[in-house]
Amino acid sequence: MADQDATEIVPLEPLRVFGKAVYEACGVPSDDAEFTVEIQLTADLRGVDTHGFQRLGWYAGHLQAGRYNPTPRLEVLKQTPVSHVVDGDGGIGQLVVARTMQRTIAKAKDTGLALGTLRNSNDWGMGAFYPMMAAAQGFVSFCTTTSVPTIAPFGSRTRMTGNNPMAFAAPRASGPPVVLDMALTPVALGKVMRARAEGREIPEEWGFQDLEGQPTTDPETAMGGVIPALGAVSAYKGTGLSRFMNLLAGALPGGFHSNQVNIGKRGQFLLVIDPEIFGEAETFSSAVDEMVEQVKSADPLPDVGEVFAPGEIEQRAYEERIAAGHVVYPSSTLQDLRELSSEMGIPLEV
Amino acid sequence: MADQDATEIVPLEPLRVFGKAVYEACGVPSDDAEFTVEIQLTADLRGVDTHGFQRLGWYAGHLQAGRYNPTPRLEVLKQTPVSHVVDGDGGIGQLVVARTMQRTIAKAKDTGLALGTLRNSNDWGMGAFYPMMAAAQGFVSFCTTTSVPTIAPFGSRTRMTGNNPMAFAAPRASGPPVVLDMALTPVALGKVMRARAEGREIPEEWGFQDLEGQPTTDPETAMGGVIPALGAVSAYKGTGLSRFMNLLAGALPGGFHSNQVNIGKRGQFLLVIDPEIFGEAETFSSAVDEMVEQVKSADPLPDVGEVFAPGEIEQRAYEERIAAGHVVYPSSTLQDLRELSSEMGIPLEV
Repeated sequence: MADQDATEIVPLEPLRVFGKAVYEACGVPSDDAEFTVEIQLTADLRGVDTHGFQRLGWYAGHLQAGRYNPTPRLEVLKQTPVSHVVDGDGGIGQLVVARTMQRTIAKAKDTGLALGTLRNSNDWGMGAFYPMMAAAQGFVSFCTTTSVPTIAPFGSRTRMTGNNPMAFAAPRASGPPVVLDMALTPVALGKVMRARAEGREIPEEWGFQDLEGQPTTDPETAMGGVIPALGAVSAYKGTGLSRFMNLLAGALPGGFHSNQVNIGKRGQFLLVIDPEIFGEAETFSSAVDEMVEQVKSADPLPDVGEVFAPGEIEQRAYEERIAAGHVVYPSSTLQDLRELSSEMGIPLEV
Repeated sequence: MADQDATEIVPLEPLRVFGKAVYEACGVPSDDAEFTVEIQLTADLRGVDTHGFQRLGWYAGHLQAGRYNPTPRLEVLKQTPVSHVVDGDGGIGQLVVARTMQRTIAKAKDTGLALGTLRNSNDWGMGAFYPMMAAAQGFVSFCTTTSVPTIAPFGSRTRMTGNNPMAFAAPRASGPPVVLDMALTPVALGKVMRARAEGREIPEEWGFQDLEGQPTTDPETAMGGVIPALGAVSAYKGTGLSRFMNLLAGALPGGFHSNQVNIGKRGQFLLVIDPEIFGEAETFSSAVDEMVEQVKSADPLPDVGEVFAPGEIEQRAYEERIAAGHVVYPSSTLQDLRELSSEMGIPLEV
């Protein structure tokens, strides 16, 4: 049995070539394949490797089975100078969300404030990517998405809305943007699945409950039980956020919402704000710098080596990996990619 | 010693008269006093009595000491068709935020999307009030505010940003709006202060830590220690939200932010969205209804009598109390109001 904590250094360029070829083989046009691969590898470069190429086989499977549309036509269903709603046409999430974000940013350049929404979309992967696109242009951004139902209403055991991540980014005057990308569960389900695969119990403080509402440390029971939302003793907060992100990203674009969310039925909400509409952009980005300085000079708790600003750990991973020209994968991820390579007859030269 | 759990039924009309007279005695113009009192009593009517007239004496004290400005001039510092930034001029928070929300809604009526921000503002009381103003006009709204520093950066013990509440509301086709109003701490500090006053320990699962990062059940240590943010084992989520609400409501309006937030130095962020910009408003409000129906039909956990939609409990309290023409206060709140009456020589006819 493989060591689950083992990692492997994988050079970036062959991954790019492989990913693009996989998508092209699934019928995705060349430039869309390249664009999608860059977004997914950005997750891996930032160390968010649960949301990068680990999902490549999954997406390829959806494309091959006709559950994802390789050539979505991004129709603008309705628009104003400050808004547009786009039909994602069942395309790859990263592709259709990023294209819609590009157009939302273009609107914000004209008007100072813009809101783009998507219906009939898919899993967006690493949510941080989209507000970071806006922050790279000097804008503040808040984005959210629906996802498959996992979170029951507070006090119930019927799964109803997703862990609907919220992602924020803001530009700094002297440094990369601050970024927060968070799902509404305190613990990723991937961690529970991994404990199940390894035959380990999960800590009670993760907050999972069985269907009777009793705490559980058994990963199998946890996966079938009541999944905790942010808030612990006030879990109505996390479940409430799940409901409202569901409205913003699902109902507002006129798409699917609540327990109807599924493949091809996700939605997104992309808000872009130019700080210039309220004052000088430099004043704002300098204030973000001041905030980061306050975070960095905060007194660490014992045993904490360094206090990090939102997104700083991921940014550091990105800079190291892009300079080295490689990513670092769990061995299981590389193994999965090798199997995909073999199945599809597409060489993976790593 | 008084029973801390005792409550008293207090008729609404004499409270209105008393509150208005208190503010007028502090130099607040009559119509502003009346407007402010209505907002604060709405909190009490909704059962959010920690955020209503319990704070009347506090606000009156600030006005009398010159820390609040009784006659703020709400200057629009910069605006576009979709945005404006307003100087709150140190006025009563409820007054200046609600006035700014009125103007933000007016913009949204023209453009479909509007963002108002405030600097040099104060405590907004019950955050739910402001997005509910927008929902009453058929709009979706997300609002947030800065507050005094309580939340340390994740891994540190230096208080830096507030528990910065987030408040959302969305209109329903058939019923009052859904509403979520939540601070970023799992447990209100008021509960810890009350345990301290009563000489009780607090539960370890509330998540308070001493300055060494160790869990504490001593309320005194908790108040001086590290205050937990949403997220439990992933508390970087709650602390991260605190940072980003600080940027949206503090830095973006060009106001004070991070550890500088204080009396007269709060800020707010008020986003208003007309669902019509993405489709038919009726489609959206019907989708909100569907979501509420799914919540209400969710299977309750054992010992849970009823599953509630966001804001439903408060709405029910409101309807009961407005029909009865009274609020229900903790005895200590009524006692405080009687003392205020005595100090200011203003009769409280209850």
